[in-house]
Amino acid sequence: MRVYLDHNATTPLRAEARAAMAAAMDLVGNPSSVHAEGRAAKGLMERARAQVAALVGCGTNQVIFTSGATEAAALAAAQKARHGGVFAALRTEHDCLLSWADEIAVPDADKSALVAISAANSETGLLAENGLVPGNRAEQAVVSDITQLAGKLPVRFGAVKPSYMILSAHKLGGPKGVGALINFTTEDPAPLLTGGGQEMGRRSGTENLIGIAGFGAAAQAGAADVAAGRWDEIAQFRNILESALEAASNLPIFVGQRSGRLPNTSCILTPGWKGETQVMQMDLAGFAISAGSACSSGKVRASTVLRALGYDEEEAASAIRVSLGLETTEEEVLRFADAWTRQLTKHAARAA
Amino acid sequence: MRVYLDHNATTPLRAEARAAMAAAMDLVGNPSSVHAEGRAAKGLMERARAQVAALVGCGTNQVIFTSGATEAAALAAAQKARHGGVFAALRTEHDCLLSWADEIAVPDADKSALVAISAANSETGLLAENGLVPGNRAEQAVVSDITQLAGKLPVRFGAVKPSYMILSAHKLGGPKGVGALINFTTEDPAPLLTGGGQEMGRRSGTENLIGIAGFGAAAQAGAADVAAGRWDEIAQFRNILESALEAASNLPIFVGQRSGRLPNTSCILTPGWKGETQVMQMDLAGFAISAGSACSSGKVRASTVLRALGYDEEEAASAIRVSLGLETTEEEVLRFADAWTRQLTKHAARAA
Repeated sequence: MRVYLDHNATTPLRAEARAAMAAAMDLVGNPSSVHAEGRAAKGLMERARAQVAALVGCGTNQVIFTSGATEAAALAAAQKARHGGVFAALRTEHDCLLSWADEIAVPDADKSALVAISAANSETGLLAENGLVPGNRAEQAVVSDITQLAGKLPVRFGAVKPSYMILSAHKLGGPKGVGALINFTTEDPAPLLTGGGQEMGRRSGTENLIGIAGFGAAAQAGAADVAAGRWDEIAQFRNILESALEAASNLPIFVGQRSGRLPNTSCILTPGWKGETQVMQMDLAGFAISAGSACSSGKVRASTVLRALGYDEEEAASAIRVSLGLETTEEEVLRFADAWTRQLTKHAARAA
Repeated sequence: MRVYLDHNATTPLRAEARAAMAAAMDLVGNPSSVHAEGRAAKGLMERARAQVAALVGCGTNQVIFTSGATEAAALAAAQKARHGGVFAALRTEHDCLLSWADEIAVPDADKSALVAISAANSETGLLAENGLVPGNRAEQAVVSDITQLAGKLPVRFGAVKPSYMILSAHKLGGPKGVGALINFTTEDPAPLLTGGGQEMGRRSGTENLIGIAGFGAAAQAGAADVAAGRWDEIAQFRNILESALEAASNLPIFVGQRSGRLPNTSCILTPGWKGETQVMQMDLAGFAISAGSACSSGKVRASTVLRALGYDEEEAASAIRVSLGLETTEEEVLRFADAWTRQLTKHAARAA
């Protein structure tokens, strides 16, 4: 039986999402059609919108469904004209935001700009300050990536909200291919996709009804799990894993172990042992983990996120990410620790 | 029991698509992950890609999955820089293409441009010349919308192929929220969505795996149905419908009745009786039809498509579209004809 420990790459579909999607499959209509079938489809979609709004703490009219966080990021970045014409992102942001950045830096506080500041990093699990969603500051409008935070921790704001948030269904038990831009500004974003005028003109294209139904159900179930503290146990398993690895070797470095982290994520550096190699060895041993973020396959390079945090090339190249899910058990993480330690011993023997 | 006659707006999910989607729901991995779970997801996606490629007559590497025809249209239109910097579309094109048009006209033949010429019109069902997918001509690269053609008629090319085609899963029995750009050029299109580098860098964003699986299965089943001539019977039912309406009244005009049309579509003008009113009356009577294309709800205006074909304002405003599906029965169309004729009689009595 394989053990899946790559939940930050994508999660298994939750039972609640699956049931909602199966029900949506029975609907015939296009949400834009005015007849009974269309209205039923629209009703289902609006129910999902309310479920997502409840998870992230916004109004339903602030939720714009997209094909995922990547499209939501592109849509947010395209609004830079309204925010000083500059889009800035740190190197630690996800590529879907970073790829649009005019500046890879934090701009001066008095300079008008749209700035990407994620709420939680996908590779390390590191949280923004106090675990809050970063908000606008001075002249700067913020787009905050809550993709990894939503459904694992409460979506909490400080005194000021960001202008935009982006998130994705498939990181919280929903299907791949659906996400949302949350628009906290008072203006509708200028659309990237035009045509039929769906999503109140903010995002054209017939809506991914089945996916949206799954997103809504996963959001609702995820919010309930967060409220019930179900991730506390997962954080314990993650800590048990790290303790087991520490007990077995003094080599591994656990990134951000003393900082605010997602409850499910362990980013482990073992200098001299390439992360890509570990992923392959552990895959053969029956465990799915990753070296950095999943995105484009075949992309083998040391994590820019870790380099930005000050780790050197060799340390960064040795990173693996172990990310647990709500169904992960203590027995699974202990099996992983055992298998990983055996591989480390072999690696050390080869290296010696 | 309601009768759904709005298949050009969206189709019920085919059993084959539903089964493929249910199977995809069991997969855990992200197609970009290198571990076994990721490779299984990737394998499923590539199988679907081959199924779509077979339906539309292209190579698998020419299929770029998108969130639907609207995104595919935006991606195609964005390539205009490679084709003279001008994107042209006739008024009869779908809004997803029309919304990007620099020119609403056919450019001079010697002028370099990217030109949208659909293979079949969604509102009228009218086909391009000889039922072929329009190809590039002289200096002009063509993007052809095959959304309504694919899965209903063979995708056939003349001597020259277009540069791009766009299509959507939910018009052929697949789910909403997934489509494709077919790229027949030798260059990769410049992406609209950037980040993880999925789809070989041509369209970033974690792929809609469940939707793509459904798209592939629907494409394969649709191709088989076309090959088996299953739409011939549907065309007969459509003709039976039109004959029944003609027999009942000399008012209705059947758009393109003597031209090449999709087998399932009837666009009916009844001057003086508003299409929107008919849609509501027929909805109450248990029938789902549309007035023009579905897209943005609440948009009530005379069809620009029909105005472009030379019909006057009153004629265009009276249009309804009745579009059949493979499961439509003769009994259903006769029930529709009966109900519609009764409404027409009431309308005439009110108008008198």
